[in-house]
Amino acid sequence: MSLHPLGWTATGRLTILDQTLLPGEERWLELDTIAGVVEAIAMLRVRGAPAIGIAAAMGLVAALRARTIGPREGFVQLVERYAATIRAARPTAVNLGWALDRMVHRAASTLGDGRAVLAALEAEAQAIWDEDEDACRRMAEHGQQLLRARGLGGSGAQGGGTGAQAHGGTGEINVLTHCNTGFLATGGVGTALGIVHLAAERGTRVHVWVDETRPLLQGSRLTAWELAKAGIPHTVVTDGVAASLMASGSVDLVLVGADRIARNGDTANKVGTLPLAIVARHYGVPCYVVAPFSTFDLACADGGAIPIEQRAAAEVTRPLGRQAAPEGSEAYNPAFDVTSAELINGWVTERGILKPPFDGGAG
Amino acid sequence: MSLHPLGWTATGRLTILDQTLLPGEERWLELDTIAGVVEAIAMLRVRGAPAIGIAAAMGLVAALRARTIGPREGFVQLVERYAATIRAARPTAVNLGWALDRMVHRAASTLGDGRAVLAALEAEAQAIWDEDEDACRRMAEHGQQLLRARGLGGSGAQGGGTGAQAHGGTGEINVLTHCNTGFLATGGVGTALGIVHLAAERGTRVHVWVDETRPLLQGSRLTAWELAKAGIPHTVVTDGVAASLMASGSVDLVLVGADRIARNGDTANKVGTLPLAIVARHYGVPCYVVAPFSTFDLACADGGAIPIEQRAAAEVTRPLGRQAAPEGSEAYNPAFDVTSAELINGWVTERGILKPPFDGGAG
Repeated sequence: MSLHPLGWTATGRLTILDQTLLPGEERWLELDTIAGVVEAIAMLRVRGAPAIGIAAAMGLVAALRARTIGPREGFVQLVERYAATIRAARPTAVNLGWALDRMVHRAASTLGDGRAVLAALEAEAQAIWDEDEDACRRMAEHGQQLLRARGLGGSGAQGGGTGAQAHGGTGEINVLTHCNTGFLATGGVGTALGIVHLAAERGTRVHVWVDETRPLLQGSRLTAWELAKAGIPHTVVTDGVAASLMASGSVDLVLVGADRIARNGDTANKVGTLPLAIVARHYGVPCYVVAPFSTFDLACADGGAIPIEQRAAAEVTRPLGRQAAPEGSEAYNPAFDVTSAELINGWVTERGILKPPFDGGAG
Repeated sequence: MSLHPLGWTATGRLTILDQTLLPGEERWLELDTIAGVVEAIAMLRVRGAPAIGIAAAMGLVAALRARTIGPREGFVQLVERYAATIRAARPTAVNLGWALDRMVHRAASTLGDGRAVLAALEAEAQAIWDEDEDACRRMAEHGQQLLRARGLGGSGAQGGGTGAQAHGGTGEINVLTHCNTGFLATGGVGTALGIVHLAAERGTRVHVWVDETRPLLQGSRLTAWELAKAGIPHTVVTDGVAASLMASGSVDLVLVGADRIARNGDTANKVGTLPLAIVARHYGVPCYVVAPFSTFDLACADGGAIPIEQRAAAEVTRPLGRQAAPEGSEAYNPAFDVTSAELINGWVTERGILKPPFDGGAG
């Protein structure tokens, strides 16, 4: 099963699976311009903090390949200009700037002509992807202990017993997740959802409550699509349902990704994560963030320093393109919220499950 | 401004503003059959606990008027049969059964022929409506003290200051509400939203954060429509945004309605109310339920005894009729959740702001 959202054409163009069309249509875009890469990131054709970092690096390479390669100095300046343009596409996920910083640094520190610089950037983009794939595998591995801990605990015993809440029996682990954090969001098996993918692969009986994740429905559109492809049992719920599921003991574990994690552990993630963490704490359900080191931003002391992307009101007022609110009504549409570190039980990274402050360990 | 969702035709048929078409279209249905009334209630063409109680009583009258009126005994049996059919349309809002119980009791206790019974039922349906209108007015009046208390408190001082979060300044009261609880949901000015309508009418500067309220978007479709008609400033948000609004001090007060309130105060309301109450408690934002006595069910000792309506998965997987989740993915769609009494600061009723247990006072 390949659910990877990124690739190369034979001629070196970047290919992106257009996630705005899923699950209805699986259409691949071919990109070799900076404008195209910026548009794809800004419109969420590719999304997920690790994936947009990789897409930025690969997109930079694809755009450079399409140019006539001149002398070294002009070429490095071009790299810097292109990187600055891509970086502005989205503000919250730190992986975007992190990946571009690596690319710019690699260009500046590579000796030789433009061709040598491009070759180095191709290697760097591939390294960013490979490292994320490896990080995903390690996070998934470290995360298995969370499932084991819950599985042994025999949670779900208080389960309500209504038809749709049948999930919660012994032997089955019920994970609730928000947004999409699997193959589609990363260069590998995923962050939060990667733990689920690996567990299912190994025969653990896991069922996923999929928050639909308004406004852009990455849960019902993307996570459900991934889980269906992988044959993993799942049930889609509106974002407001998680609380009653937790109240009835139908959730063993909340696993979410992250877009930027501050030094003190405050974590920006898809809007709707904060209420999930508060509710999980209220009912004693453990809530873990799963993210690679590329998502940690030690320059942010706390969540207050994380820029929160504001997106178009129409995403709220016109779900799936259909007008819901009256034409004149305003909407407020922050794409992310910040969950205070004290509401999070731990941060699953490629180096294990950590706790803040992240000054050294996660640097 | 008339936003009443119910009325009569000159020939005595029930008219219902079809709320499934709002805000795009204002279409009135004319009903004089039990099947039509049941369909309108089950499909949420009329919704809101008080409104469906009134619609049930009026719909019963309309259907009876359309029949040839026979002798007393057969007519009373017909009333009972019709009432049982309407009662089954939706299980959670206790107002439905409460209104029909009143109608059946009135029929059984009225002397005279079928014509006399029908006349009594017409009077009873009108009384149910009039009493709700009066209850709404009284609740709105009692609720003003909550706004005054918050207004004087000068909340919102911690306000984030991002563009869309400008609301939260001194002198303006920020109410967050869920679902629709105004004119469209009642026989009068509303329950929770009635407090806002009255405050605005009296010149209080109030701004409403409108939870869009998935899956059926009663917030963005109906509450925003009402507030736009009334000229009251409001901003629509997805249901997951409320937490970050409260975290930034942009919410002074959470006001919600109810579909059934147990003796101990546990309150069933539109799904998504429970997380709102938990988050409000986390941030110290007061959360009040606003509901008439017809919504209290003293036969329910606590929330565990309240039946929760399960609705079609397609409401979740096909928002506004457009496929979001993959065709094969399951969804779980409870229409309501139950908020524990301890998470609610008070219950605004027509007799004042009360606290449980409701054994006597609210009976």
